[in-house]
Amino acid sequence: MNDDSSALGVPGGAIAPPQTHKPGLLAAGFRAAGVTAGLKPSGKPDMALVVNDGPIRAAAGVFTSNRVFAAPVRWSRQVLAGGEIDAVILNSGGANACTGPVGFDDTAGTARHLAEQLGTAPERVAVCSTGLIGERLDMPRLLAGADAAVAALSATGGADAAVAIMTTDTVPKMVTVSGDGFTVTGMAKGAGMLAPGLATMLVVLTTDAVASPADLDRALRAATRVSFDRLDSDGAMSTNDTVLLLASGASGTEPGLAALGVAVTAACTDLAIQLLADAEGATKEIAIEVVGAAGEDEAVAVGRAVARNNLVKTAFFGGDPNWGRIVAAVGTVNSAGPGSARFDADALDVAINGVWICRGCAPGEDRTAVDLSGRAVHVLIDLHAGEHSATIWTNDLSHGYVHENSAYST
Amino acid sequence: MNDDSSALGVPGGAIAPPQTHKPGLLAAGFRAAGVTAGLKPSGKPDMALVVNDGPIRAAAGVFTSNRVFAAPVRWSRQVLAGGEIDAVILNSGGANACTGPVGFDDTAGTARHLAEQLGTAPERVAVCSTGLIGERLDMPRLLAGADAAVAALSATGGADAAVAIMTTDTVPKMVTVSGDGFTVTGMAKGAGMLAPGLATMLVVLTTDAVASPADLDRALRAATRVSFDRLDSDGAMSTNDTVLLLASGASGTEPGLAALGVAVTAACTDLAIQLLADAEGATKEIAIEVVGAAGEDEAVAVGRAVARNNLVKTAFFGGDPNWGRIVAAVGTVNSAGPGSARFDADALDVAINGVWICRGCAPGEDRTAVDLSGRAVHVLIDLHAGEHSATIWTNDLSHGYVHENSAYST
Repeated sequence: MNDDSSALGVPGGAIAPPQTHKPGLLAAGFRAAGVTAGLKPSGKPDMALVVNDGPIRAAAGVFTSNRVFAAPVRWSRQVLAGGEIDAVILNSGGANACTGPVGFDDTAGTARHLAEQLGTAPERVAVCSTGLIGERLDMPRLLAGADAAVAALSATGGADAAVAIMTTDTVPKMVTVSGDGFTVTGMAKGAGMLAPGLATMLVVLTTDAVASPADLDRALRAATRVSFDRLDSDGAMSTNDTVLLLASGASGTEPGLAALGVAVTAACTDLAIQLLADAEGATKEIAIEVVGAAGEDEAVAVGRAVARNNLVKTAFFGGDPNWGRIVAAVGTVNSAGPGSARFDADALDVAINGVWICRGCAPGEDRTAVDLSGRAVHVLIDLHAGEHSATIWTNDLSHGYVHENSAYST
Repeated sequence: MNDDSSALGVPGGAIAPPQTHKPGLLAAGFRAAGVTAGLKPSGKPDMALVVNDGPIRAAAGVFTSNRVFAAPVRWSRQVLAGGEIDAVILNSGGANACTGPVGFDDTAGTARHLAEQLGTAPERVAVCSTGLIGERLDMPRLLAGADAAVAALSATGGADAAVAIMTTDTVPKMVTVSGDGFTVTGMAKGAGMLAPGLATMLVVLTTDAVASPADLDRALRAATRVSFDRLDSDGAMSTNDTVLLLASGASGTEPGLAALGVAVTAACTDLAIQLLADAEGATKEIAIEVVGAAGEDEAVAVGRAVARNNLVKTAFFGGDPNWGRIVAAVGTVNSAGPGSARFDADALDVAINGVWICRGCAPGEDRTAVDLSGRAVHVLIDLHAGEHSATIWTNDLSHGYVHENSAYST
């Protein structure tokens, strides 16, 4: 992934390529498992468990900003508010979203059941679900799966857990980042609906660092803001998105907020790029870097407008360096108010993969010089309005995307 | 089109099915022509001309809200500010957008040339262009085509003009609305990039009513707000969108603002539905009707969020009544600030083609009862937050859309 991340995160991006190595081991102080409960018609693994053996059990979480959110999000938000959890149980094969009060009771029942098995309290167990919306989970199977997961817990179970949370993912996503005397590891699932305010994704990060819940929260929010929140695969936003960060303190190292933040950001960035690379049906990973903005938020607003534009996305699928569609997308951003960006439309410059094919909102260098044969595409937009910049990552809009998403539930 | 419009505009929509008949004749006092200038590689007609013979020459225009707009938009905005024009010349085969100062000079030169031929002033000639962005027009061909158009002008030339402005349209779009003693006729082109703030489209409406420029402006803005502005085929917004309304006064009837507004709105609505039906690669026309909103703007915001959601659009392409994706799209709307909508997520009801498959954000009636075999889809979303409503029209996201838009310029 280092090749991809350097292609996407640089040049000029805010995020340096993380120094990571895989496969994703669990940080010291954690055990995990991935088992098959039978929730998926395919019979593939569908239940994961991560347990924090301490000595500390600090935790933080970031959740979907969608106003329609699933029962496990409602539950886990409450649980994480306490700043400490002992375990996270995750299932694929069903989102438990839009299932009403009975769905919330199913989530609470899952936590209660697992807490009994682990000898802890339900309010110290987070629950995550992913899959189809609007259908109840098969609770007998799920609870039996939870028991099997408890039985299978091991310090080397991280890879099994990463597999068990997959839905339409084609590969599991794991990362390990080595800090100075501590480690951050993570697993993620998600291959569609990637969007701001988080993607349809579940992420569990574990660290053996010593850190307070407040510092974990700050590190996690800073990291998601420049990683998962800047993925915009298809403009959609899931009901179930959850990113959790758990600290065991088993390393004995207290890195402090700055070093912790760097490591967590590196882990989140690496996982975000893995999610992008596995987006449903995509043939391109597109980094839209906006420079010369009057503010970082303005750069983000412009990047999002381009990332969400279906005509831009289909053009890249067709290997067409269509800068006209890009500037037209930039032009849809308001000039004042929330989500706006200041720029003079006649000053816009656009480069695609290093070729400045648009200068001053008019034809620049020869478009035939643009090489779009690879998967990585770098769009560079200069607003000439200031010193700020941001990069948004997206995918092309392909036949594969339409195929996978038109056939998902039927 | 009356069948389609009744399926899409009702029930509960703000817009009554217009009483129209086709083919689109020109209103009295106008002549038009459509000719082949050779701007299109295909050799198809690509230049249209509409001339107002009076006795009055009142006019109004509504233009794209994109900050990146084409030279002819810059020109015609200035021309229309005067409230009177004698002619509109339109070309397909090139948008003359993002062409810099030389592109603006090309537009001004076109108006100058035509004004000489017609014995009027350049500032009384509007210019519209549509086609690829970022390429200069072939001016020698275009000016020769303008001469040919002048020579071909006739009172029955409306249909030829409607054909000459087509780009990826598969059929010309025309409408005639009969008022009490006056007539409104219109032609439109556009088959993609339909979006709020207008679509990639050119529309010329002519009426033989007697009306002031101010009343034409009011009638046109009111009409576009509930017709073209509520089409959201793919969330994109063009650099060239222009809607013009010209009045000749040849009927001698002065209908007043209210009657004029009804007729212009009927014409715009009919043309909007024709645009929707011809959207690139679409297999469904989808009316998203939002009721129970606390304000009309809030209903529009919710409708747009659903209309732009690629997961919703691909689900309809797949014939899948996926209400979970619909409520998840509704949930992305902010609860405060511009573009927000007030609602309790747990109260959301959703019907698809008359079946309430989601009640209280949970499963309702049996989803297998939803018939999605036809082209017309009616999504009804009840926010239970007030008495306001609005309907947004969109299409599904199909393989055909991806195919057409990935191959457009290459």
